Amino acid sequence: MTLNSTNIAIIRRLLGGRNSRPLKSILLKIEASDLAKLFSLLKDHEIRTYIDALMSIDKASDTLKNLPEPQLVKILKKIESPKLVALLTFCPEDDAAFFLDLLDDSKETLLARIPEKRRRRLNQLLSYPEDSAGRAMITKVFSLPIELTAQEAIDELRKRHREEAIYYVYCVDEEKRLVGVASLRALVTAPPETRLKDLVKTEVVAVHATTLAQDVAKLVQHYDLIAIPVIDENKALIGIITVDDVLDIVQEQATADIYASAGLQEDDRVYSPLRFSFKNRLPWMLLNLVLASLVSSIVSFFEATMSQLIVLATLNNIVAGIGGNTAIQTLTVVTRGIATGDFSFISYRKAILKELLVGVSLGVLIGACAGLIVYFWRQSAMVGIIICISMILNSFVASTMGAIIPIVLKKLNWDPASGSGVLVTFITDSFGFFSFLGIATIGLKYFS
Amino acid sequence: MTLNSTNIAIIRRLLGGRNSRPLKSILLKIEASDLAKLFSLLKDHEIRTYIDALMSIDKASDTLKNLPEPQLVKILKKIESPKLVALLTFCPEDDAAFFLDLLDDSKETLLARIPEKRRRRLNQLLSYPEDSAGRAMITKVFSLPIELTAQEAIDELRKRHREEAIYYVYCVDEEKRLVGVASLRALVTAPPETRLKDLVKTEVVAVHATTLAQDVAKLVQHYDLIAIPVIDENKALIGIITVDDVLDIVQEQATADIYASAGLQEDDRVYSPLRFSFKNRLPWMLLNLVLASLVSSIVSFFEATMSQLIVLATLNNIVAGIGGNTAIQTLTVVTRGIATGDFSFISYRKAILKELLVGVSLGVLIGACAGLIVYFWRQSAMVGIIICISMILNSFVASTMGAIIPIVLKKLNWDPASGSGVLVTFITDSFGFFSFLGIATIGLKYFS
Repeated sequence: MTLNSTNIAIIRRLLGGRNSRPLKSILLKIEASDLAKLFSLLKDHEIRTYIDALMSIDKASDTLKNLPEPQLVKILKKIESPKLVALLTFCPEDDAAFFLDLLDDSKETLLARIPEKRRRRLNQLLSYPEDSAGRAMITKVFSLPIELTAQEAIDELRKRHREEAIYYVYCVDEEKRLVGVASLRALVTAPPETRLKDLVKTEVVAVHATTLAQDVAKLVQHYDLIAIPVIDENKALIGIITVDDVLDIVQEQATADIYASAGLQEDDRVYSPLRFSFKNRLPWMLLNLVLASLVSSIVSFFEATMSQLIVLATLNNIVAGIGGNTAIQTLTVVTRGIATGDFSFISYRKAILKELLVGVSLGVLIGACAGLIVYFWRQSAMVGIIICISMILNSFVASTMGAIIPIVLKKLNWDPASGSGVLVTFITDSFGFFSFLGIATIGLKYFS
Repeated sequence: MTLNSTNIAIIRRLLGGRNSRPLKSILLKIEASDLAKLFSLLKDHEIRTYIDALMSIDKASDTLKNLPEPQLVKILKKIESPKLVALLTFCPEDDAAFFLDLLDDSKETLLARIPEKRRRRLNQLLSYPEDSAGRAMITKVFSLPIELTAQEAIDELRKRHREEAIYYVYCVDEEKRLVGVASLRALVTAPPETRLKDLVKTEVVAVHATTLAQDVAKLVQHYDLIAIPVIDENKALIGIITVDDVLDIVQEQATADIYASAGLQEDDRVYSPLRFSFKNRLPWMLLNLVLASLVSSIVSFFEATMSQLIVLATLNNIVAGIGGNTAIQTLTVVTRGIATGDFSFISYRKAILKELLVGVSLGVLIGACAGLIVYFWRQSAMVGIIICISMILNSFVASTMGAIIPIVLKKLNWDPASGSGVLVTFITDSFGFFSFLGIATIGLKYFS
């Protein structure tokens, strides 16, 4: 059932009523991702009844994890403590760890009230670094001893009550080490007496709990997998990451890449609280103010030149602006190439050379256009020639920097996306003003 | 087996030899995505032998479609025509349609040589719009008559020879219309005599062949699906889109979004030919030159003011630059919010108001800082006050425009990402110079 205004109205009426049975039966039919959207329409007292109903049909954690983080934190804080402990105790471990991690201030108190065995496992999960496979994995994973036959495996599969996400059958040895994998289809279509040993692929693509989530995503994409197993330092199978979680990882990575160029933090979203966005954007704005002031101080060297020929003050933004565009285009292509693995099809050297040639060719053409515009507009051949030359020089600097900076950052194991935009813009602005006004100063000295 | 320098050397040696058997047996063990990377290392004559070997082990199309498009086109053109026709006739239909679409000039000639029945089906696929579900789908889909029992279904499954990607069992009626879906797991674990009718979910999330690929991606992400069925206008099942293809769609969409802000076309990559990149970037650079010239003409109104107080010419880039940053940050957050569906958790009105408040708060703070810097650096309280006021005004314009423009573009059904960056930068540049120099002109007139 999809969510529409009719069933939203029905749900809200049922939330006010005493009989929870019809409410539960309607909620059972709606997808968790749709159920999550309901929260923003509900009042505080409705939210509590809603969560009770979700918990009783075992859909609370599934629904909650579809919420954006700031909203999720708010709602988790609204749940009374005994209920929250119950939720954290009975929902999937990986969800519990995710929720606990968000509840920073009450994490320890809550953990103390969770049964010891589970607490130990949750602490284990929370010990994996953020953005690692250990944090992204589902810990409920279907595995079988490698000694079984296909028929025995299917019988095992039948015994599991809950509908788990099963796409591959992972086989383990006596020490729970991952030793092979078979597709569900291969299992079903094999003769019943076939041994798993003879059915499985023993070369399994797996990741460690500490592998970076984005590296996991690359592997899953590269091998077109539906799920990838996660192992610990003893090669024991401890979880899987499914492709739908990989999709989320890829989306978040894309957001991070897009945001990096504007100096934004990944969790600064349209729905983030105002103060959060303000605090997050402030350092970037201050950095830009400092850099803009530095550029200004370069321009100030040439005040005498500009006083002598005021048209220069009108035109210098063109040189800097076009240079910035060239740099950003080159930078974007190279950065995205690094992110998507395009560089397995071309060498860095060739790519830099190409970007340089494209940038300078564009610089020559656009510089000539700018020279002509200035010549006809301001009736000065000299200023036209100056702007043309400085734009060509700046296009060289812009495309070289735009191509090399992200590659150098990558080689240094830094994120090539963040910071490189502001750096190249600063360089092209400075060099743009410097070359234009510098050449003009020389021109005025010798040719007028 | 993964690709490394040892087996690359072995493959190259085998490509030179006469005996194709060892070559095939090594190629069989390597993943198609790895095999694709080999192409860039091979010489022309090796490429031909390589493709022959890939065709004979039925991995040619799988390997080729992993190549970046420009490289793929080059290689397809190297294949002799009879072999290419054979490839297009025997590879999966959807791959054949994809290859044909790239071979624009020889498409008709090639199609004419393909057996009629297949040609008709290929033409059907090619008739779907670019970026539609019909283009992204796999046409080989496992479906069963709804009347079967679970055991009969498993027997059917066993009969299929090739390892197809089967995650769900789609059920169709006599007219081939999609009427239900069951997971492979549900099928396997159900009592053998259960009728599919009683096993399937009849509310199937499906898309039409003409649905936009990015809308398909959103559905798959929203419902955490592994595959989504594609139907035609008669509700007949004609294909599926699997989540690994959705991953590619999401990656391409992310690239398009990142590129849009820099005025780049999606297929302008590090490995694209120089001429292609030049031609693609030129219009954007020309547009920017025109806009920069317009901004310059605004500045030129104030030449008299700048002559009178040359320090203004040194400082005006600060106002425009900081305004541009504010606008781009707001724009990026709002555009990304539209792309990822964040607006199901907040209204447009509230988001615009928040962005406005963040932008202006930052404007006040950064404006004050800039005012102080100028006051101490240039020893002029008046210029300090002018820069502060104009930066606050510009932050208001920047955040309003940055938030509203993408939303308006979205409402008009245009792509909110493309073009909005250059538009808001133009607005903030113009308004930044205008307000700073305008206020300075008034200030000079009345206060000095």
